[in-house]
Amino acid sequence: MAIAPTPLAALGARAREAARVLAVAGADAKDAALHAGADLLVQHADAVLAANRRDVARAEDAGVAAGVVDRLRLDGRRVASMAEGLRQVAALPDPVGEVVDGWVRPNGLRIRRARVPLGVVGIIYENRPNVTSDAAALCLKSGNAAFLRGSSAAIGSNVAIAAALREGFAKAGLPADSLVLVEDASRESATEFLQLRGLIDCLVPRGGRSLIAAVLEHATVPYVIDGDGNCHVYVDAAADLDMALSIVVNAKCQRPSVCNAAESLVVHADVAAEFLPRAAAALEAVELVGDDAARAIVPAMAAATEADFATEFLGLKLSVAVVADLDAAIAHVRRYGSGHTEAIVTGDLAAANRFTREVDAAVVVVNASTRFTDGEQFGFGAEIGISTQKLHARGPMGLRELTCLKYVVEGDGQVRD
Amino acid sequence: MAIAPTPLAALGARAREAARVLAVAGADAKDAALHAGADLLVQHADAVLAANRRDVARAEDAGVAAGVVDRLRLDGRRVASMAEGLRQVAALPDPVGEVVDGWVRPNGLRIRRARVPLGVVGIIYENRPNVTSDAAALCLKSGNAAFLRGSSAAIGSNVAIAAALREGFAKAGLPADSLVLVEDASRESATEFLQLRGLIDCLVPRGGRSLIAAVLEHATVPYVIDGDGNCHVYVDAAADLDMALSIVVNAKCQRPSVCNAAESLVVHADVAAEFLPRAAAALEAVELVGDDAARAIVPAMAAATEADFATEFLGLKLSVAVVADLDAAIAHVRRYGSGHTEAIVTGDLAAANRFTREVDAAVVVVNASTRFTDGEQFGFGAEIGISTQKLHARGPMGLRELTCLKYVVEGDGQVRD
Repeated sequence: MAIAPTPLAALGARAREAARVLAVAGADAKDAALHAGADLLVQHADAVLAANRRDVARAEDAGVAAGVVDRLRLDGRRVASMAEGLRQVAALPDPVGEVVDGWVRPNGLRIRRARVPLGVVGIIYENRPNVTSDAAALCLKSGNAAFLRGSSAAIGSNVAIAAALREGFAKAGLPADSLVLVEDASRESATEFLQLRGLIDCLVPRGGRSLIAAVLEHATVPYVIDGDGNCHVYVDAAADLDMALSIVVNAKCQRPSVCNAAESLVVHADVAAEFLPRAAAALEAVELVGDDAARAIVPAMAAATEADFATEFLGLKLSVAVVADLDAAIAHVRRYGSGHTEAIVTGDLAAANRFTREVDAAVVVVNASTRFTDGEQFGFGAEIGISTQKLHARGPMGLRELTCLKYVVEGDGQVRD
Repeated sequence: MAIAPTPLAALGARAREAARVLAVAGADAKDAALHAGADLLVQHADAVLAANRRDVARAEDAGVAAGVVDRLRLDGRRVASMAEGLRQVAALPDPVGEVVDGWVRPNGLRIRRARVPLGVVGIIYENRPNVTSDAAALCLKSGNAAFLRGSSAAIGSNVAIAAALREGFAKAGLPADSLVLVEDASRESATEFLQLRGLIDCLVPRGGRSLIAAVLEHATVPYVIDGDGNCHVYVDAAADLDMALSIVVNAKCQRPSVCNAAESLVVHADVAAEFLPRAAAALEAVELVGDDAARAIVPAMAAATEADFATEFLGLKLSVAVVADLDAAIAHVRRYGSGHTEAIVTGDLAAANRFTREVDAAVVVVNASTRFTDGEQFGFGAEIGISTQKLHARGPMGLRELTCLKYVVEGDGQVRD
């Protein structure tokens, strides 16, 4: 007797079926579907905005914080930009089918590795409804079905966006189930979603710390974590201090709320007396907390606690440490860094080489802002997230990171001795 | 107040420290350590064999099955072969430092991806003591510390092997903790091992189904699964039947107990009447179970159950199905395959192309035995396992699969607008 699948597993099975079609769909078919999705989204913009207004009103009635409501809110411009995002993804090269390497064995076997879709990509995300279309676009272009689970606050918006895209995909001849949205936004469904082994080939959580913690605790499906960015800028003894100042200010202030913003400034003792007062002046809008050596130079700075050095502030606060040498700088980064992005500013080649070699992070930057750790900035055209784990993908994830490799072995009847 | 780490976490921290040294060790230093380890293993062979005799005696007293005792037992030849294995790994190219790709952005940023060690590789394994030296060698060569947790049955052998290798590594100037062995072989320590997040960068379980199930259930560290191989050979209508016979016999019988052996034969209806009687004769030592169509041709065959088609027999048993066409063959493989290795025998290019494209497995083989899915056979020189998952590594895993990629971004003071 077959056991009836749960409603969520039945949804996953629909995504799985669609994934089989998508896996062998050509780039032309996928691009046509993305454009059709964009057209339908524009066509149904009124319905999307009406649903969004209901979500926003419900959130406001429930007393949700203004910042959260802002992330939830759509307007005509945002919907147009979602449609434009679909067209931009259509314009990117198709990662599927790339032959990564290949060789011939002495017995004549021809072996090659080719890029193929993962299958079903699960995305669990928070309030931004634009993730629905962004994620669906990247999944479809890379030949994967998108199995999406957004928040209850955005459910009406997400349903309306998904309906438009599904209609577009189907109109273009690809399965509507290329995008399957979970409409049951209960906590139980979230946990079940994380455990749909066999139905989700790769899970990418998009959200804050509590979501990541839930994935680490409950997920039994394979996942890629987009974790904290406790990023450092180390100003070396041999740094061009004007360059260092410009980098520190950019890394901290250009967009403080994101994971690739700097959270900590580490300065070599030889240049601290000259650099720190200049930095403090340039960072006047930033709350600085420092160690004893830093405070001896800039007394206005409050004392940094151990927790400060370990914290991703995601705002206008910066921890400051003075170190005796490059070894101490590397040790500091090792102790407090989260493996996201670590930068050195130096004119000394040996220092740059040691830093890039010895610092264990997804991205190590020499003489540039930490803010460049980003799929667009890296030239990927779009990103699904920034991985802080080591397996599968590390750093900005584009279309390529939504694929895996398949070995194809061709022979002429070879058998093993 | 700092919380004292558990004994297991303290061991992991020692491996983590060693990993930092190994990450920047050159190939010469690593190769010298592998040779020194081999020398010391040979030098301490008597101690290893004495410890092994005690393990074997204890297992026999406990009434452990003969096959298990056999896997546990070492002799002079096996120890010599372990030492030779260390030297073979030393002779392989170092995967660390390879620049996989790189490009320049319009703003002048130079971006490259370089291969770096994972850090600490955890291996949890069963009774074969040779895994202790094999795994340590592959981890060290790829710049990783090996954090090993074997079975209680082999604990004395493992301790003796690890002691010899650690002495060799230290003698050659690398940390003894490049190999850290867990000596507490309790079930609790196994579960704790699977959950040492932050101390194990990648876990590779080496063992049977219950070990894999424990990893899937309990592990919170990142892992690569070496899972079941329910491998099929599909004999197409356009197959050279002599070639097909040779491949089927090799895939099933050359070494039936391993994951890349065939477990199922799928035959196109057009050639079944000719092929199946020949296959049955050639596979006379094999228990065949088939569907109705197969049994109509070879009546001696018992009826295959649904469970038979889903089972990795790991022995001289083979399920047989007759299919109407290539679509049905692909559907059969999709339904019952485990994503390990799937083979087609055909002279029809279109059939070969559809099979390689539509079958979702780590390795798809055309006109050769499934038994070639193997690190040695692929030319990797050695393997740590065969991944049946899609993330990070898929198929045979060699030294390359024990590394990850790090982005290095170099600029001249670039900041983001």
